[in-house]
Parts: sequence; C-alpha cells; structure tokens
Amino acid sequence: MAENSRGPLARTVLQQCLHARLQVQEANEHSEAQFVQIDRGMVIYICFFKGATEDILPKMVSTLLNLRLCEMPCGKRASVLELPGSLLIVPQATLGGRAKGKAMQYHNNISKEDGLQLYHSFVSLCEKELKAAADVTGKEVEVTVKHGTYGNRQVLMLDTNGPYTHMVEF
Amino acid sequence: MAENSRGPLARTVLQQCLHARLQVQEANEHSEAQFVQIDRGMVIYICFFKGATEDILPKMVSTLLNLRLCEMPCGKRASVLELPGSLLIVPQATLGGRAKGKAMQYHNNISKEDGLQLYHSFVSLCEKELKAAADVTGKEVEVTVKHGTYGNRQVLMLDTNGPYTHMVEF
Repeated sequence: MAENSRGPLARTVLQQCLHARLQVQEANEHSEAQFVQIDRGMVIYICFFKGATEDILPKMVSTLLNLRLCEMPCGKRASVLELPGSLLIVPQATLGGRAKGKAMQYHNNISKEDGLQLYHSFVSLCEKELKAAADVTGKEVEVTVKHGTYGNRQVLMLDTNGPYTHMVEF
Repeated sequence: MAENSRGPLARTVLQQCLHARLQVQEANEHSEAQFVQIDRGMVIYICFFKGATEDILPKMVSTLLNLRLCEMPCGKRASVLELPGSLLIVPQATLGGRAKGKAMQYHNNISKEDGLQLYHSFVSLCEKELKAAADVTGKEVEVTVKHGTYGNRQVLMLDTNGPYTHMVEF
C-alpha cells in the first residue's frame, strides 16, 4: 500500500491464531504477571515510522480488519469483522528495524511519545469497528480487542492452525 | 537490503522463541500428526519472489544467522550462531501477498517448484552454518535446524519471551 515516492509510514504483520496470550504486566514483588488473551482471531504486530499521523489510521484499520484472511469451516476466507473474531494488537517497534551489518537499526521509527498516541488511537478505532461489526452480525459470540502495553516487553504465546503470516505496509 | 531498482527477491520475518513447535504431517487415518520443535532460538518465516535464484542464498543465510537479535542473560544481544541457538524455518508463501481490496494477491510469488528448491537449499545452508558455529563454540548444547514441509499448512505453536519481530528483505 506504500507509495513509491516515500517509505512506509506504518508496518504491520498479521497472524491468524486459535489462541494468543500476551503479558501486559511483568511479575514484581507485589503482584503476579498479568496477561491478556484472545481465542480465535488475528494478531496484529504494529510499528509506526517517522512522519506517521492520525490521518493514516482509518484506512489502516479498515484495510486490516476487512482483509479476508480467516479460514472458515467451509474453506472460504472471512475477514476478522465478518467472522467475527477477536484481535490482539501488539506494539512491535522492532518491525521498523533495518539490518546494518550484525545489528538492526531503528532510525526511521517514530518517537516514543508519538508512537504511543498513534497506538492508542489505532486500538480505539479497532475496538469501535469490531464492536459495530459484532452488533450487526448479532451473533452471540464474545469478540474482543486486547492489546499490549506500549513500550513493554511483549511476552507472547501463540497457538495457530497455520499463522498465514502477512505483512502490510501503509 | 533490497535495492531500489527492483522489488525484493525474498522476504523473511524473524521471531525469537523460547519454544516453538510446527506440524510437519497432518494426522490421517494411518498415523497421528507429526511435529518438529526447537527450544531457545529463532523462527524464520520465509517467502521467495519471482526472479529469486540460488545466488541470493549465501548472503541471506549469513545475514540472518549473524544478526544480533537474541537476548543473553547479561542483557547484550547475540546472534543465533553466537548463542548458539536453534532455528525453526517455516515456509510462508503468504508473506508475499499484497492487499488488493479485501483480498490478498500473490502474483509476485515464485513458482512452487522453484520455491521448493530454494527452500531446500536455504535449509541446507542454515544447517551447515549452525553446525560449523556449534563446533567452534564447542558448547555441549544441542542446537538444531528444524523446518516445515514446503506446501503444507504450517500449524505453529510459539512461546516467546518477547518475539522481537523483525522483517528483513533481500
């Protein structure tokens, strides 16, 4: 989706899952580690680059949530909105890296402050879209948007029926 | 790593893992499903595009296996060769997709026959490099290269301490 005249403003990696669990709070002396989890649905790893603004978010969310990537029992593919399935959104700054010798460099990544804001807006938009779709289908299935904590270590456990890994840039 | 004058010839997605398990044979009426698995190391999802040849493989393998992405107890990063860790290589044709409306298109993917050949060569080169590195370090740890069956559904279970997802193109 990225235009040739510029680099991408955001990079996402998508994986279908049967179950996924993400740590959102490390264990410490006061409490145990805390996790969020989803069952059937899609994991979205997301990274924003310098120059990304809120303007790109509606199209990103619309594209990602409407892509027909989820296998249905009949063999056809449905989008996560059509399924409907759940979403696990994982902030993943490492996706912005470029290999330079033996190291990865992250010079094009957005600043932490701006990235945090975009990430929160992205999650909110996904929640809104998924809720609207679930209301329309009227199915009595629990679909949710869960997400990692921006800046944290993303401790992930993923169980798939074939992750069908896709990369989509914006 | 891709030059601007052409699209990429190969796309890889890398994730660090504590444990990963991949189905290499579906269950059927004669036998149970078969799996390969690794403990600490790196999962490489790989997809080749049209125009890719064996020429690109040595640089790909050298780059991927020498990238310092694996966290050591001291906090520094080591390559999978330095660690040494294991590799799980997952053929993942979906990585070559481009979003077009609600569907992903795979027009730039290499043919199945050519992809299969490159995939086998890639796995062999990784095995050779990892074995050489393990011999040098002389550590009595079991490091292995495991890989999925090209063309199969890649049923994956991944357990991480933070996947640190990276995308590297060649």
